[in-house]
Amino acid sequence: MSSDTVLVIGGGPAGLEAARAVAGLGHEAILVERRQRLGGTPDSAGYSAFALDPRPAQEVLEVARQAVLTQPLVQLHLETEVKSFAGEPGDFKVTLERADGSTADVSCGAAIIATGFDHFDPGRETQAYGYYEYEDVITLVDAERMLAAKHFVRPSTGKPPEQVCFIQCVGSRDRRIGNEYCSKVCCGVASKEASEIRELVPDCRVFIFYIDMRMYGFWEDRIYWKAQEQHHVNFVRGIVTEVISKGDRLLVKGEDTTMNRPMEVAMDMVILSVGMVPSAGTQAIGKLLGVAQDKHGFISPTANALDTVSTSVPGVYVAGAAAGPKDLDDSVSMAGSAAVKAVSFLRQGSMAAAAR
Amino acid sequence: MSSDTVLVIGGGPAGLEAARAVAGLGHEAILVERRQRLGGTPDSAGYSAFALDPRPAQEVLEVARQAVLTQPLVQLHLETEVKSFAGEPGDFKVTLERADGSTADVSCGAAIIATGFDHFDPGRETQAYGYYEYEDVITLVDAERMLAAKHFVRPSTGKPPEQVCFIQCVGSRDRRIGNEYCSKVCCGVASKEASEIRELVPDCRVFIFYIDMRMYGFWEDRIYWKAQEQHHVNFVRGIVTEVISKGDRLLVKGEDTTMNRPMEVAMDMVILSVGMVPSAGTQAIGKLLGVAQDKHGFISPTANALDTVSTSVPGVYVAGAAAGPKDLDDSVSMAGSAAVKAVSFLRQGSMAAAAR
Repeated sequence: MSSDTVLVIGGGPAGLEAARAVAGLGHEAILVERRQRLGGTPDSAGYSAFALDPRPAQEVLEVARQAVLTQPLVQLHLETEVKSFAGEPGDFKVTLERADGSTADVSCGAAIIATGFDHFDPGRETQAYGYYEYEDVITLVDAERMLAAKHFVRPSTGKPPEQVCFIQCVGSRDRRIGNEYCSKVCCGVASKEASEIRELVPDCRVFIFYIDMRMYGFWEDRIYWKAQEQHHVNFVRGIVTEVISKGDRLLVKGEDTTMNRPMEVAMDMVILSVGMVPSAGTQAIGKLLGVAQDKHGFISPTANALDTVSTSVPGVYVAGAAAGPKDLDDSVSMAGSAAVKAVSFLRQGSMAAAAR
Repeated sequence: MSSDTVLVIGGGPAGLEAARAVAGLGHEAILVERRQRLGGTPDSAGYSAFALDPRPAQEVLEVARQAVLTQPLVQLHLETEVKSFAGEPGDFKVTLERADGSTADVSCGAAIIATGFDHFDPGRETQAYGYYEYEDVITLVDAERMLAAKHFVRPSTGKPPEQVCFIQCVGSRDRRIGNEYCSKVCCGVASKEASEIRELVPDCRVFIFYIDMRMYGFWEDRIYWKAQEQHHVNFVRGIVTEVISKGDRLLVKGEDTTMNRPMEVAMDMVILSVGMVPSAGTQAIGKLLGVAQDKHGFISPTANALDTVSTSVPGVYVAGAAAGPKDLDDSVSMAGSAAVKAVSFLRQGSMAAAAR
């Protein structure tokens, strides 16, 4: 019965876990992913490793992919987008459109939005960090890809850097660009990457310029302390106002707010810790499904301290960074929670129908 | 069939949501709570409000309680503890013991540990904050109870305070006491309480002394900015080393690390932002069920970036602060995820049995 089916939109960590969970509960999941391959942003952006899991990111993602690919109850549509969404809760009518333009009509009783985030475009920053100007200014994401390849070098020279810094909160906690929120994971990701750089290039000095180090829970001792004590990463509370070129290096200018004095430090590479913004898919799907979104385009869960996944439309749930800045734990836990709510919603409908 | 049943241990937010979720999926849940009433620590400690939900905490908890109390598939055991746990995954044999000493034997196919946390005892602090010495030194929890009663006064005088401060990281990020982790929620809770104090006692000046303000995600603008801009709470990056009595007030001594100078400030009340430690129940249940625990006694999920709830024992899952410092979102999302894993585990067992 089509109304026993749950549509899962997005094949990243949250969508994979949601589809796996729905199928594990004995219901059919239709998993729609616009890319050619499952794995979401961690896959397409080429992440090196997840914060607290020592394995390569691809190894972790492959486990999640296989769980879905070997599950007969998951009907997979790659290179496919949701073109229209109509009907009513318990009996939604959905048109899927493939990359080749062909369409397919499917029905589902409930839907889970897991369309994720994009990395903030540092061209939108209000400071002058020069991402599009200087080759050796890169982002957390660029660094992640280099670390996954175990080849961390200055883009301008192809040689290992001697001094590198991270600049935190690029695109986050910033009223001027309209992103007031904190992106939650960048402190942890930067600390993890800093440790990886120190392992790959032991002679390289690594600095992290931050406002607050948001290393919550076990990230504190398992990532932050480890970065300081085992990997000798230098954490400097400071605000960087400008990055300029000087000779063949970069000059980072700002204020060291602990020492209360201006600073100017020469770096071989500058890594911008870019935050999260809703993906284009999240913004579009939110509109298409008619669910409440915040001013940024993130899907707004209904204001309820004990429900992280219900949206303003009955039968439609959200999981992962489509709902705002989330870490991987948030995303997979929410995916399970969304699967429970979706399947419970279908069961209520079936019971009501049986009682009629 | 008993093996279709899930045992949920603990009736706080995570346990309530786990039981509700299991029942919503059509399986029986046996919910065991040692207290006389459902609601967990937020209930017994008398919380005023949850971080991002404007309603009184009791109103929120009552919704969760009713969802369980009106659900015929939840078998509730109040004032009951798990006395023994044997058998094997898919067919656990459990003895429950009531407060009156009577016992009951039940069977379950899977179990969810949701036994939560305790607040750190400030008597264990290594600094000299004088919680057991001075009446006007209280904890976040004491403050929560006063705020719930809408009656915020100095314990020593019964009169509204004129100047109050919070000291962050009491029992967290502290190697000397062995709690290296960050307790995750205290920055948000202190900021929320500070705003509530300013609303109740508009003439009272409120300070928060902190190391890093860990206001991740939407806590940044919805709690932290609001506390600063709407409620004029003063956030001071500083380390408090000592609280002493001076006349009828308290003298807070330490270092303002932004201004780089020693500070001494007179306060009417000092609120210690105590962190999370595993509850006695979490420590004991972990041992009884034989699941891996960390050195603190928190239940350790299996090291897997895409699974937040599986423990070292198949068929046994964990949700909420029993697994470490968690916020309410973490707890309820994990509860859903644990319910999915538990019910999927039961279904696998049934399918394997049917195939034999």
